[in-house]
Amino acid sequence: MAFKIGLLGLGTVGTGTAEILLNPAGRNALLGEVEIHRVGVRSLDKPRAIALPPEIVTTDVEGIIEDPEVDIVVELIGGIEPARSLILKAIASGKHVVTANKAVIARHGDEIYTAANKAGVYILLEAAVGGGIPILQPLKQSLGANRIQRITGIINGTTNYILTQMKEAGRDFADVLAEAQQLGYAEADPTADVDGFDAADKISILASLAFGDRIRYEDIEREGIRQINTTDITYADRLGFAIKLLAIAQKDSHTRNSLQVRVGPTLVPYKHPLASVNGVYNAIFVEGDPLGEVMFYGPGAGKGATASAVVADILNIVALLKSIDTSKGVHPLYGCFHQDYATVTPIEELETKFYARFLCGDRPGVLGHLGTCFGNNGVSLESLVQIGFQGDRAEVVVVTHDVREGNFHRAIDAIHQFESVDDIKVASILRVF
Amino acid sequence: MAFKIGLLGLGTVGTGTAEILLNPAGRNALLGEVEIHRVGVRSLDKPRAIALPPEIVTTDVEGIIEDPEVDIVVELIGGIEPARSLILKAIASGKHVVTANKAVIARHGDEIYTAANKAGVYILLEAAVGGGIPILQPLKQSLGANRIQRITGIINGTTNYILTQMKEAGRDFADVLAEAQQLGYAEADPTADVDGFDAADKISILASLAFGDRIRYEDIEREGIRQINTTDITYADRLGFAIKLLAIAQKDSHTRNSLQVRVGPTLVPYKHPLASVNGVYNAIFVEGDPLGEVMFYGPGAGKGATASAVVADILNIVALLKSIDTSKGVHPLYGCFHQDYATVTPIEELETKFYARFLCGDRPGVLGHLGTCFGNNGVSLESLVQIGFQGDRAEVVVVTHDVREGNFHRAIDAIHQFESVDDIKVASILRVF
Repeated sequence: MAFKIGLLGLGTVGTGTAEILLNPAGRNALLGEVEIHRVGVRSLDKPRAIALPPEIVTTDVEGIIEDPEVDIVVELIGGIEPARSLILKAIASGKHVVTANKAVIARHGDEIYTAANKAGVYILLEAAVGGGIPILQPLKQSLGANRIQRITGIINGTTNYILTQMKEAGRDFADVLAEAQQLGYAEADPTADVDGFDAADKISILASLAFGDRIRYEDIEREGIRQINTTDITYADRLGFAIKLLAIAQKDSHTRNSLQVRVGPTLVPYKHPLASVNGVYNAIFVEGDPLGEVMFYGPGAGKGATASAVVADILNIVALLKSIDTSKGVHPLYGCFHQDYATVTPIEELETKFYARFLCGDRPGVLGHLGTCFGNNGVSLESLVQIGFQGDRAEVVVVTHDVREGNFHRAIDAIHQFESVDDIKVASILRVF
Repeated sequence: MAFKIGLLGLGTVGTGTAEILLNPAGRNALLGEVEIHRVGVRSLDKPRAIALPPEIVTTDVEGIIEDPEVDIVVELIGGIEPARSLILKAIASGKHVVTANKAVIARHGDEIYTAANKAGVYILLEAAVGGGIPILQPLKQSLGANRIQRITGIINGTTNYILTQMKEAGRDFADVLAEAQQLGYAEADPTADVDGFDAADKISILASLAFGDRIRYEDIEREGIRQINTTDITYADRLGFAIKLLAIAQKDSHTRNSLQVRVGPTLVPYKHPLASVNGVYNAIFVEGDPLGEVMFYGPGAGKGATASAVVADILNIVALLKSIDTSKGVHPLYGCFHQDYATVTPIEELETKFYARFLCGDRPGVLGHLGTCFGNNGVSLESLVQIGFQGDRAEVVVVTHDVREGNFHRAIDAIHQFESVDDIKVASILRVF
């Protein structure tokens, strides 16, 4: 008896998924027991890159979800609605669900998992984070012995491509973004990627798995890469850093009970493995006790990579259906049972290193003023260097030791108050990993 | 009801495993259902780093295996015997087995898996390859949609530490090996590590999972790192390569039906992610269709990392025991059902790039002779450079294009025949990744 798939959406990932399922030779033998039963599309007239028997393709998406023969609904429509309603209907119909939809899980995971646990069905979403990289099941199944301390991801391929191109070709953000849009690496409306929303969705999913608590989307500190310029990329490079859009979730080192979750452009030391993750590649770096450090690296997007993760989820559900006793409840390493929301440490209490660049009138005492403002606010400096000029203004770059975010910003406020007097302008502020 | 562990061996990894199991707070909640029932040791008098209730520690290892209360036997003794016999007895007693023992699985996996499949028990061994890196379960569970083309590992921490030290400090093999022995990174008898046996064990396990066929140990082409010297490390660096002990299993690109499995020191281009895996870190790089490239990186050894993988296997078995219907047979993504041995492509038919260094009498025509010998044997060269001197002899370094291994060696034979005439000595030959 074959296990029957209802596939919703036949875009890039849907097509890639169908291609694998229709062509199982040389892959895991379980694929021989999987069958595409029906495919839901918006329009029957659109030309398709894949030949499917016309009788299985339909615009009646709800009919697929209600079809008693369908075992697993694969939602590859994306976005919040109608994806959310369709997933909830599939659960209500007793279907297992595979999805690549990070946004709907990050924002409505609470509702979706509560319904799935009640219905005794599985919701797997390996493709939602890190494209083809196996990370969600390994977090659930392979790292459970550990107390996770921090999880750090380069988990948005578009921004990593843009930052890599800016650095390698010395080109501006706007210029590289336009090219990425032409190449299909960035959307016409790039907001979700370049402003960090997509990475925030993904880190909230990773954090909830790694730390066992649900994350409120609004608790995530989020900053994108629009303000990154080649000047900072060049200076960071001279100091031994690459600038990456990092998504970080970590246990508060003092309380151990609360989390800090944030997305933002960050200086990564070259000796760190994340610094050499370039282009559209993604990586997720996990620190835990007693494991130490592990990293998962691979293609963060693309038809084949994402479809590989979708089909892995299908195989996992099929294997479960073949072997579990449903009366015993959901398999504990495949389900998601969090009930509580994480307490989130306010960003002012975060301890981190900072990089800041200042444009200063080139006159005696300016470096002294900067140093004094930092010192008065408890910000200890690793370096304070006049690194170049912009016109007649001196560029000064500061790298701090680990300091409290709140103290750092108080120092910056103090510097701002000097501005009119001593002519010091804050050109950029970035965190250091 | 708790799931009961019979732990065999209380060395480094056994101690690490017990520490996690005795201290479950902050880790996966399932650990609360796991209990160390009995611990088998060789001597009761040896001082231990961990406090265990004396009544659970015993030298009666067979008694643990026969104890009807034990659900999972965790074999952390290592080596071939008595580990092999103990694992087989545990299987015969209907126990599930977790082991970190690469040697016994690589060499006796056939017998062990046949017995386990017949008995309907699980044999998990995540810790046997890559220490704490999740790789075996991800290969089984997360990459099944793919046709795997090649799997490449830096999977021996000792040799990677030695090669990294030789490069960074410009020190000789013997010198660094002695230090590694003092630091506990290398055994008193370093053969298993430095001659590539350990990496061969591990790549045979990876290959059997990735390609679905068992590997005969004697089919693995194996070469260690004793002959690596700082001269080649320096020249490789100048050409843009790091020298790494790679273990590689790949589909034959022509027949697609046979495998090539080998272990040997290899030049890795700096732009490749494996080139920056240093020290005792390990990494496994997997290439598949349609996934592309993924890499799993982390600590390849050490108490905490290895114990993390052992406990992950325990958690997976506990989760299965809580949810499966044993009448349905072994869960298809946790079992190992290979029956057939892989056909292995003879090494002469491998196509690869080579690096070779020659010491030549510094007289006209020597480069020409070298070029002629390669050309006559169908070996096309990427570069042929006189790169330095050793005493009065010129050092010439050759890098080939992809060539058949057999052709390359015929060219070297031809060069050897010239030796007395033209004074050309082959100083080293290494493959290029």
